Amino acid sequence: MFVVVNLKAYPCDPVAVAEAAADVADETGVRIAVAPQAADISRVAETGVETWAQHVDAVDHGSHTGSTLAEAAAEAGAEGTLLNHSEKRLRLADIDGGLRAAERVGLESIVCANNPRQIAAAAALEPDAVAVEPPALIGTGTPVSQADPEVVTDSVEAADAVGDVDVLCGAGISTGDDLEAAAELGAEGVLLASGVAKADAPKAALRDLVEPIAE
Amino acid sequence: MFVVVNLKAYPCDPVAVAEAAADVADETGVRIAVAPQAADISRVAETGVETWAQHVDAVDHGSHTGSTLAEAAAEAGAEGTLLNHSEKRLRLADIDGGLRAAERVGLESIVCANNPRQIAAAAALEPDAVAVEPPALIGTGTPVSQADPEVVTDSVEAADAVGDVDVLCGAGISTGDDLEAAAELGAEGVLLASGVAKADAPKAALRDLVEPIAE
Amino acid sequence: MFVVVNLKAYPCDPVAVAEAAADVADETGVRIAVAPQAADISRVAETGVETWAQHVDAVDHGSHTGSTLAEAAAEAGAEGTLLNHSEKRLRLADIDGGLRAAERVGLESIVCANNPRQIAAAAALEPDAVAVEPPALIGTGTPVSQADPEVVTDSVEAADAVGDVDVLCGAGISTGDDLEAAAELGAEGVLLASGVAKADAPKAALRDLVEPIAE
Amino acid sequence: MFVVVNLKAYPCDPVAVAEAAADVADETGVRIAVAPQAADISRVAETGVETWAQHVDAVDHGSHTGSTLAEAAAEAGAEGTLLNHSEKRLRLADIDGGLRAAERVGLESIVCANNPRQIAAAAALEPDAVAVEPPALIGTGTPVSQADPEVVTDSVEAADAVGDVDVLCGAGISTGDDLEAAAELGAEGVLLASGVAKADAPKAALRDLVEPIAE
Repeated sequence: MFVVVNLKAYPCDPVAVAEAAADVADETGVRIAVAPQAADISRVAETGVETWAQHVDAVDHGSHTGSTLAEAAAEAGAEGTLLNHSEKRLRLADIDGGLRAAERVGLESIVCANNPRQIAAAAALEPDAVAVEPPALIGTGTPVSQADPEVVTDSVEAADAVGDVDVLCGAGISTGDDLEAAAELGAEGVLLASGVAKADAPKAALRDLVEPIAE
Repeated sequence: MFVVVNLKAYPCDPVAVAEAAADVADETGVRIAVAPQAADISRVAETGVETWAQHVDAVDHGSHTGSTLAEAAAEAGAEGTLLNHSEKRLRLADIDGGLRAAERVGLESIVCANNPRQIAAAAALEPDAVAVEPPALIGTGTPVSQADPEVVTDSVEAADAVGDVDVLCGAGISTGDDLEAAAELGAEGVLLASGVAKADAPKAALRDLVEPIAE
Repeated sequence: MFVVVNLKAYPCDPVAVAEAAADVADETGVRIAVAPQAADISRVAETGVETWAQHVDAVDHGSHTGSTLAEAAAEAGAEGTLLNHSEKRLRLADIDGGLRAAERVGLESIVCANNPRQIAAAAALEPDAVAVEPPALIGTGTPVSQADPEVVTDSVEAADAVGDVDVLCGAGISTGDDLEAAAELGAEGVLLASGVAKADAPKAALRDLVEPIAE
Repeated sequence: MFVVVNLKAYPCDPVAVAEAAADVADETGVRIAVAPQAADISRVAETGVETWAQHVDAVDHGSHTGSTLAEAAAEAGAEGTLLNHSEKRLRLADIDGGLRAAERVGLESIVCANNPRQIAAAAALEPDAVAVEPPALIGTGTPVSQADPEVVTDSVEAADAVGDVDVLCGAGISTGDDLEAAAELGAEGVLLASGVAKADAPKAALRDLVEPIAE
């Protein structure tokens, strides 16, 4: 299982969460990445944790003021990037362009989408993985694996039909049970956010979370 | 073959083009539709020509000032809608939403995309058809069937792999030879624009165009 | 006072509301306009009511599939256009471009904005009028004139400082008292929506509404 | 005069340009800032040069994946931010929101715009400064001060009418003469990009540029 902790624009200390994630990854052998704001990528990466961008733009070097260039994210230390998160939905052509930008600089990629049909579309664009997050469940305490298990199994089926694309799931994941349930439904990982980023003790929260899947 | 004449925001007389298209469709048995501005749908539909919207928004009835509601397009006389034209690129979730809106009111749908990978993604969203239009060729005199025949055959292959989705092609189509070439490459139709909409004699232009495929 | 009834994408009969508005305008001498979906402009205009577009794009004739061209709106019968409604917020440059498009075809214009500072900015772009609608009050039953009278008086002051630009107000307006209150605060008109468009009897609703300001 | 060097998404070494700018600022007493990609803010700021963000989003802390939070830019070392650059045009409400976000964290602000009318609108939103850059001249070798001096003087006049807002100008600035000309037209600074960022020797390029206005 791959656990991605999305820090969004939360008022958390990104370095503290990154250090906690690095420690728990070391202790448990579980792959854990942290996705901070672009401006925080370098100091998060310096902790040694696997670092992901939250977004890169579908642009190459050039006149693109205010964009997030894949090259800049990679040079700051990112190893992967989310694309098309429900809070940063992209045009179809720009998901394609963003994926090609990620490939160009060796960033791994996860394209988010809302439902199995969009997951199939996202998978057709040849990312490394896709993540299904039903918008109605984001930020609720109810895990997708419990509220709507079919959206996960249908997404896995849809991605398998298109090609060899891993499926993660997100929305409402906050306990080790949720992680196990996601794995049983066929997910290869989970997207987390507030459950860890806003926790009083991020390290304890992460440890509890990954404990059931630790080696 | 299905011929869609996109009037864009051209300074043409939409009714004159619609009447020409209706006549040529009657004479030749070729299916021809005209896609005008939303505000022109009703008077184009009154000519009896098959009328398509250029776009509908991914919204339902409600507080959506300035949107193009599928219901309004259908009630004005539209029988289908383009979505995600390269001049009106949409977010993945909004192509999905626009298709569901079209289904809701019985509009047929064509989703445009730039390349075979995006065509596969578009096809996964379950439209009635997809249309591949390489942006670099739009508005040039060079037909896609000649400049880049593989983009058409690869798109047909990509759409077939996903499901039963027809492929149209566009960009640079202006002669009957272009139409025949498109058909030979596996396209089920073409998107036209300036070649007809800006012609001095739209009826003659259309007649020349569809002559090779007339019954 | 100028009363603009915005039909948004409501499931109302635009022609019925238009006829009601035309009748009440005739009976009372109050200026009343109806703003339908672009696809409904022509049949609304045929009722004789003053008809407004909900939006026009910042484009000229050309390759702009899916846009709403000012020329098409005007030819269908629109006499004015809203711009930058809170449900269709525009980029600064596109409000400017939309206003120039409206001028080009003789459409009157109202630019919406959220607060007095944005009203000053909107007024600087030289529309015919601006409309202040605090987003938090839209769709509530609480009229802006009562919930936040200062936002109206401050907007009037801000628009006066920039030039000779009328100020309308919107959000929560549903009774004749609300209209009178708006006028007393310096507004030259109001934007209405659900109060009329969703009323069981639009004509009675409008008549009650404009009665206090009728000649 | 204030000289802002916008690195856009150019394939330059941001640290090398930053060091050059810091040195030339020290040598000449001219205020020079460098605006890198968000992911490069911290290492640019570490050179000691005045560092600006190219953009911040109109958001507060919260669920805004893929945004550029003003707090993150400031914590990484930014002292100011551009907003509404012609390559990152924003909605009117988001310029307002971006300015309030900048104020919240103590970032200085420059709002870009295309023409004197938009400059008046931008100035009404109460930024620290505005910058006029006619889109047609960006990236050309022709300085705005020479190609269209009235756009500068009219912008200064428009900003003065609104309040106490400095005006910078951009587009085509590449020599010391251009800077002097801009100052004579009433500009308080200039936006530069390729002339410095793409120069073989950024330090020499900057030194030549600011020499006429050095103390």
